[in-house]
Amino acid sequence: MFLTNQSVSAAESEMNDDPATEILDATYQALCDHGYAALTLQDIAAEADVSKASIHYHYGSKENLFTEFLEYLYSRYTAHLEPDAETPRRRLFELLETVLADETTPDRPFRTAMLEVKAQAPYDDAIRDRLAEFDEYLYEQFRETIAAGIEEGTVDERVDPAVAAEFLTTAVTGARTRQVSVDRSPDCLRESIERYVRSHLLAGETAEVAQ
Amino acid sequence: MFLTNQSVSAAESEMNDDPATEILDATYQALCDHGYAALTLQDIAAEADVSKASIHYHYGSKENLFTEFLEYLYSRYTAHLEPDAETPRRRLFELLETVLADETTPDRPFRTAMLEVKAQAPYDDAIRDRLAEFDEYLYEQFRETIAAGIEEGTVDERVDPAVAAEFLTTAVTGARTRQVSVDRSPDCLRESIERYVRSHLLAGETAEVAQ
Repeated sequence: MFLTNQSVSAAESEMNDDPATEILDATYQALCDHGYAALTLQDIAAEADVSKASIHYHYGSKENLFTEFLEYLYSRYTAHLEPDAETPRRRLFELLETVLADETTPDRPFRTAMLEVKAQAPYDDAIRDRLAEFDEYLYEQFRETIAAGIEEGTVDERVDPAVAAEFLTTAVTGARTRQVSVDRSPDCLRESIERYVRSHLLAGETAEVAQ
Repeated sequence: MFLTNQSVSAAESEMNDDPATEILDATYQALCDHGYAALTLQDIAAEADVSKASIHYHYGSKENLFTEFLEYLYSRYTAHLEPDAETPRRRLFELLETVLADETTPDRPFRTAMLEVKAQAPYDDAIRDRLAEFDEYLYEQFRETIAAGIEEGTVDERVDPAVAAEFLTTAVTGARTRQVSVDRSPDCLRESIERYVRSHLLAGETAEVAQ
């Protein structure tokens, strides 16, 4: 999704003296390989090439390790979504491109595992609270960008930033779910959401007539 | 979601002479109680008050039983979504109301379990094919209804039924996921999608100015 194999490798080479971070990187890989339900500390230890005792020393229980792992992912997610575009209009499409990027094969198992994690949320407050942070961050990025686009004049001033951001967050979540569960093409899903933005959010001259 | 406790009870009283159907009803309850990953034939047998041998006799493996269970759910899903409204415009809101109904407590575990099942789809072609049927059915209901609404004059003629139906299917899927994973209010999610329909799909006099 947002932690590509490249970024894991980069993290490993940057921080390979830090066993706590190595364990988090290994958790990512083990999660991709085994899924969440089947994930064991032994899988993570084997991936990190450390002992289970070392994991216990750094993180305590599997539950606690996983909560820390989600926090680690969150810091990478927010870094990955840092704005690069120069205008709100471009930023809106940059956001969609980043969160709905066509998946390379190594990322697909991760997205699948994250759907499994989402299904655990009702049983685990710590997981649900962490997932809510991802959800709220994305919502807030959309809301701020749309509000800035209205200021800029490229987003229709009749759009309510909070309403549109809520709807876009729901659509992005649905795109990720459908990609995993019914193998819907990421390109097709992204095109569908971008079309909504172009037709219904952008102002006059930049908006499309066709809906 | 669409198989309420009432409908299970009704099915049980209608068909309590059919052990094969009783096993499917028991699978529904056991899925709600245990989730998908932890679900065993023993759980289902205990719920149905039959032996594991009886389940094997009727359905063979757990995998086969689950595929049959998804087919059984599908037939109930399509029956539950049968049109009742008199006009396409009403039908559009009826569809959203049915698929995004505020969950009563007994249905929530079922929706959670179904999210777990969705995360299994990449590993199991039979599950993915069944889930694709639900997805395609909902898409087709939206597409037909929007096309009929254009004929009727209540849906904006510039709307492309296929594009809008694809987008609505994604939004409904996202609403279900966010409800489970970040405990987002079903009412709030439904309101957000209905607002999109009122603002962007309905024609002139019925559409809302505010976006």
